[in-house]
Amino acid sequence: MNVPTSRKSLRDLGEFGLIDRLVRSGCGDGEGVVLGVGDDCAVIDDGAEQRLLLTTDLMAEGVHFLSSADPVKLGDKLLAVNLSDVAAMGGEPRHAVVALAVPEALDVSFLDGVYRGLRRRAARHGVTIVGGDTTASRSGLVMSITLTGRVEPDRVMRRDGACAGDHILISGAIGDSAAGLSLRTSVLGKTRDAGLEQADVDYLLARHDTPEPRVYLGRALAVDGEVSAAIDLSDGLASDLRHICQRSGTGAVVHVDRLPLSSPLRRCAASIAADARVFATCGGEDYELCITAAPGAVARLKRRAEQVGMDLTDVGEIVDGSELRWQDHDGERFEPSGGWDHFSSSDSV
Amino acid sequence: MNVPTSRKSLRDLGEFGLIDRLVRSGCGDGEGVVLGVGDDCAVIDDGAEQRLLLTTDLMAEGVHFLSSADPVKLGDKLLAVNLSDVAAMGGEPRHAVVALAVPEALDVSFLDGVYRGLRRRAARHGVTIVGGDTTASRSGLVMSITLTGRVEPDRVMRRDGACAGDHILISGAIGDSAAGLSLRTSVLGKTRDAGLEQADVDYLLARHDTPEPRVYLGRALAVDGEVSAAIDLSDGLASDLRHICQRSGTGAVVHVDRLPLSSPLRRCAASIAADARVFATCGGEDYELCITAAPGAVARLKRRAEQVGMDLTDVGEIVDGSELRWQDHDGERFEPSGGWDHFSSSDSV
Repeated sequence: MNVPTSRKSLRDLGEFGLIDRLVRSGCGDGEGVVLGVGDDCAVIDDGAEQRLLLTTDLMAEGVHFLSSADPVKLGDKLLAVNLSDVAAMGGEPRHAVVALAVPEALDVSFLDGVYRGLRRRAARHGVTIVGGDTTASRSGLVMSITLTGRVEPDRVMRRDGACAGDHILISGAIGDSAAGLSLRTSVLGKTRDAGLEQADVDYLLARHDTPEPRVYLGRALAVDGEVSAAIDLSDGLASDLRHICQRSGTGAVVHVDRLPLSSPLRRCAASIAADARVFATCGGEDYELCITAAPGAVARLKRRAEQVGMDLTDVGEIVDGSELRWQDHDGERFEPSGGWDHFSSSDSV
Repeated sequence: MNVPTSRKSLRDLGEFGLIDRLVRSGCGDGEGVVLGVGDDCAVIDDGAEQRLLLTTDLMAEGVHFLSSADPVKLGDKLLAVNLSDVAAMGGEPRHAVVALAVPEALDVSFLDGVYRGLRRRAARHGVTIVGGDTTASRSGLVMSITLTGRVEPDRVMRRDGACAGDHILISGAIGDSAAGLSLRTSVLGKTRDAGLEQADVDYLLARHDTPEPRVYLGRALAVDGEVSAAIDLSDGLASDLRHICQRSGTGAVVHVDRLPLSSPLRRCAASIAADARVFATCGGEDYELCITAAPGAVARLKRRAEQVGMDLTDVGEIVDGSELRWQDHDGERFEPSGGWDHFSSSDSV
C-alpha cells in the first residue's frame, strides 16, 4: 500500500483544490446520478416525475460565526445558504436534516434560538425539518444541514452550459455582505466614526447576517429552460463565475462599472476611500444568483425576474477561451484579488 | 420576546433530552412527511413509487475518534453508521453527501484515506457519493454524512409498532464494540497482559472500528411486513430498546442470559472478572438490528435472516406497561447502567 501522499495541508490546497481532488478520485458516478460533485446541488433521477436535488452546507464556530452571534440569525442563515444552492438549480426546496456537534457546556437556550431561526426560515419556504443528529463537540459548535429539493427534469439549471456570446446576469446587488462582515470586524470598524449613517450600517449587517436566498427567482428563471448556466454567489463573483467558465469551457468579460452596487455599499466604500467594486467581485456570501443566457432571452428573463420583485443586471459576456477579463468603461483592466475561500481567508467570521 | 430559557447545558439534558426538546418544538410535521424526527430515518412520500429515507450522522474528533485513528477505517465507519440507520428502516441505501470541517494544517493524505474508506464502503452497498461541503475548522476534524435510501411503502420498519406479546430479536452478537473500545482505552488496557489471545483482541477492535451495517438483513426482514418494530443498536440495547418501548407505548422483559455474546467477548470479560452482559446491554456501536415481531412470525424471520447469513436471537418479550425489566435465568433482576450517550459518556472515543 505505497500510496503516494502529498504532504500538503488544506491551507496549501484550499477548499476548491480539495474538492477537485475528491472529484478526481471518482466520487459522483453511479446509478441515477444526473449530476454529482461540482455543482450547487447533486441531481438524482430516482424514478419520480421530478429530479431529486441534494445539497449540504456546514458552518463552524470561529470560521463562519463567533460564539457571540445571534443564534436566531445563525439558524436562519444556515438554512438560507442551503436554500440558495437549491435556488441556483431552479429547484423547490423540500426537506432538511440537521447535524450538530455541540460543546457540552453550551447553554441550550442558544440552540433553542438556532432552531427558532431554522424553523422561521423553513416555514417561509415550505421546508420541513425531518430529523438530525446531535452529538458532543470537544471544541466549538459545528452545524451542518442537508436539504432536498425537487425540480422538473427540463428545468434543471447547472453550471456547465454557458456558451460564447451568452450574457452574464446578476440578481439584486453584490458586495453588501462583505461590507457587512467588514463592519463587524476590523477593516471598516472605523467607518462609524467616519460618518456612515446607522441605516447604512444596519442594511449592510443584515445583508451579511440574514441573506435572502433567491428561491422564487430561481424557480421563475428556470421556467422556460432559457438559462444556459447558473450559480449562487456564495464565494464571490470572481470565484463563482470562474466555476461557470471552468465547467463550461469558456472565458468571460465582465464590465465592472456595470456591477449592481447598493447605495449603502457605495457610501460605505466612499467613507473609507475604498473601491466598492472590490467588495462586489471578491466578497462572498451575497447569495444572489449569477446566470448566463443567449442575448435573445435576456429581456424575457428580466421580465420574469421583475414578476418576483427582482432586478437582473447585465454585467458582461461569455467568450471563447478560458480567460476571465475584468474591465472598466475605459477598457482598463481591473484585477479582483481572488474571491472567498474558507481555507485561504484569514478573517472569515 | 420573553421566552423562558432553561439555563441548562447539554451536559444536563443529554443527547436524548435535547432531541426530545427539538421534537416538542415542532419539527417534523409537513407535506409529504410520513415519519419525521425520532426514528432511525425520516420517511418521505415524494410521489415516487418508493418512500424516500433520509438520515444524517456526525463524527467529531475527540468525541468519536482520535487524530491517531486510521483514516480509512474512519471513513468506512462514518458511512456504516448511516447505512445502519437505513438498514433499520428496511431500506436500500442510495446516495450520500459529505460535509467536512477540516483543521487547516491537517495533512490532506488523511482525508484521502477517509475518502478511500468512504468509497470502499459505498461501493459495497451500491451507494454513490454525490457531493458535499468542505470548510475550515478552527479546532478538530468534524465529518457529517447524509444518506438517502428507498423503501417500499408497505415495508417500512419503524420504532413505534411493538405490541405486548411480541418477541424481541437481536441480530449477530452484541457488546463486542464496547469491549473493543475499552481495549483501546483504559478499562481493559491490562487484559493484553492478562492473557487475552491476540485473535480475540483483533476481533473486538475490528467490531468497534469497522462495524458491519445489517443492510441485507434489514431488507430481508422487511419483505413480509411482519416486523412490528425495529431499531439499530447504536447506543446500546438498554437505551435503544427503551426507544422502541417509549414510542410503542409498551414495556419489555429481557432475559439477559439469552443475550447473544461472542466467545471473544466472553473471554475478554472473564480475563478481567467483568460481566459480559454489561457490555452487551450498555455498550454502544454494535450496529446490530433489534426487532420485535408476533410469536407466530419468529421462525419465518429467523429463516429469512439465515438466508443472508445472519442469526437472530430471541431475547425477550414486549409487555404492557412502561417498565423495561432485565432478568437472569433465576428471575433475578439485572440493572444495566444506562446505555450510550455522547453527552454523558466521559470516555467515548
